[in-house]
Amino acid sequence: MWIYLNDRFVDDANAMISVFDHGLLYGDGVYETIRSYGDQIFMRDEHLDRLRRSADAIGLRVPVAEDDWPALLNEAMQRNDVGNEQIDAYIRITLSRGVGDIGLDPALCPTPTVIVMTKPLSPPPPHQYQSGVDLIVAKTRRNYPGALDPQIKSTSFLNNILAKREAIAAQAFDSLLLNWESHLAECTVSNLFFVTNGRLRTPSLACGILDGITRRIILSLAREEAIRVEEGAYTLDQLVQADECFLTNTTMEVMPVTSVNRGPLGTGKPGPLTRRLHQIFVTNRPRFLQA
Amino acid sequence: MWIYLNDRFVDDANAMISVFDHGLLYGDGVYETIRSYGDQIFMRDEHLDRLRRSADAIGLRVPVAEDDWPALLNEAMQRNDVGNEQIDAYIRITLSRGVGDIGLDPALCPTPTVIVMTKPLSPPPPHQYQSGVDLIVAKTRRNYPGALDPQIKSTSFLNNILAKREAIAAQAFDSLLLNWESHLAECTVSNLFFVTNGRLRTPSLACGILDGITRRIILSLAREEAIRVEEGAYTLDQLVQADECFLTNTTMEVMPVTSVNRGPLGTGKPGPLTRRLHQIFVTNRPRFLQA
Repeated sequence: MWIYLNDRFVDDANAMISVFDHGLLYGDGVYETIRSYGDQIFMRDEHLDRLRRSADAIGLRVPVAEDDWPALLNEAMQRNDVGNEQIDAYIRITLSRGVGDIGLDPALCPTPTVIVMTKPLSPPPPHQYQSGVDLIVAKTRRNYPGALDPQIKSTSFLNNILAKREAIAAQAFDSLLLNWESHLAECTVSNLFFVTNGRLRTPSLACGILDGITRRIILSLAREEAIRVEEGAYTLDQLVQADECFLTNTTMEVMPVTSVNRGPLGTGKPGPLTRRLHQIFVTNRPRFLQA
Repeated sequence: MWIYLNDRFVDDANAMISVFDHGLLYGDGVYETIRSYGDQIFMRDEHLDRLRRSADAIGLRVPVAEDDWPALLNEAMQRNDVGNEQIDAYIRITLSRGVGDIGLDPALCPTPTVIVMTKPLSPPPPHQYQSGVDLIVAKTRRNYPGALDPQIKSTSFLNNILAKREAIAAQAFDSLLLNWESHLAECTVSNLFFVTNGRLRTPSLACGILDGITRRIILSLAREEAIRVEEGAYTLDQLVQADECFLTNTTMEVMPVTSVNRGPLGTGKPGPLTRRLHQIFVTNRPRFLQA
């Protein structure tokens, strides 16, 4: 497997960084995960914009020029034979503070580390879309936005790892995290939507969630379809009493949720608005691809 | 410089880890910083206990047997000519989830990564103890304990990096972080104490702070001296109106604070109880050393 590391492609056995990288010592870094459909990258420029915004928010320079990213991502896919007609690509860009002496001051690290990994995308298996997935509500709460802005997609990700561990221990698909006020926030790597009396609801950004790119598209497509959309601060009770629920992210697109904390949600089957929105998403997807 | 990495000592140029280490990708790791006085390590077993508790809390195995740590730390110091009569040692132990495919599940990483770094301790310069240091109150709030337990000394440390950046931008010694309820918490790498009418006050653990080892010793020594000690939830106003203030951690011991947000605290000079407690700490220090 080829990996782009700082200024060149290396094979995975040689993709090594110093133990003094502050990404390792302090979680001082940001990242993006991106996918392709064939050789077209989904919302490429939006992902790259978000990477730059994350980096700006922690005072980190992006060491790849904006214009160089498309060719770099294409080469990263081609070298690993992904991002072609046969195999969709999963791409992870990681940007860390780089190598420096021990200490919190970013100035200790003159040069950021950049890593681009590509591999075949592993989409969820079809049966999960057919029957829906189950969530538990984690004891772990979502990061407090005043402590770590959720718009910084950072490698200080332990909050979500802990919630994921709870889901794994409970043999659930994933954990739903509440925020510091006990309102619904999001899952470990996806945004949450639910449907109540035909209204599509999703936690507002003020609840301390990532401004997910697929979330934004779903909101926009729903409005185009004149579906009534509400962003707000919702309780677990409101979710449990909802008619439908689904998750969104780049890899899953629209994933139905049919159970929360072992209890069925709605009919216990993927709901009609969930299926309709996924279909609308798939139909409109070509609008969001970049070569 | 020699670094212990996983199962052997390597020089720093060869102290490299895979870019697939989940410590780098997800901040999925824990650490301790320890110091020596000469060849004696300060509160060695307490630091190692805390490392184990941090690791337990994230479901991470410590890949060094409890009995092997003392000899390992001694060798780590000796190889770098620190931890001897001439040079006190700074020791950092980092433990990460290890190498695995991309994904949040810790089971992807069969073997934790362990790194032991040693170097000469750089204590703060004497003039800082003589004149005291200045703090600003960071906009960045301390991590919400429900999201990331402060008793986990984790490498997901970006919260503190962001607060440190604010201090650097303001040319202050460090940032004081408030918690999610606007109560005083701690600084980026130290605990906070202040003195009001002869009472020694420090934020309680419930405020979302690290249970600092030097903090615990200061509380215990103060009680032995019949100084009135209070742990609680305090406001910034209470700090600003205090008579004295100081910080504690392993490296600084007891550091006077004489200014907060550019305004003098108390007389603007290190206070008498601060100096007395530092003296008591130094006198009692031999009780806390381990060979």
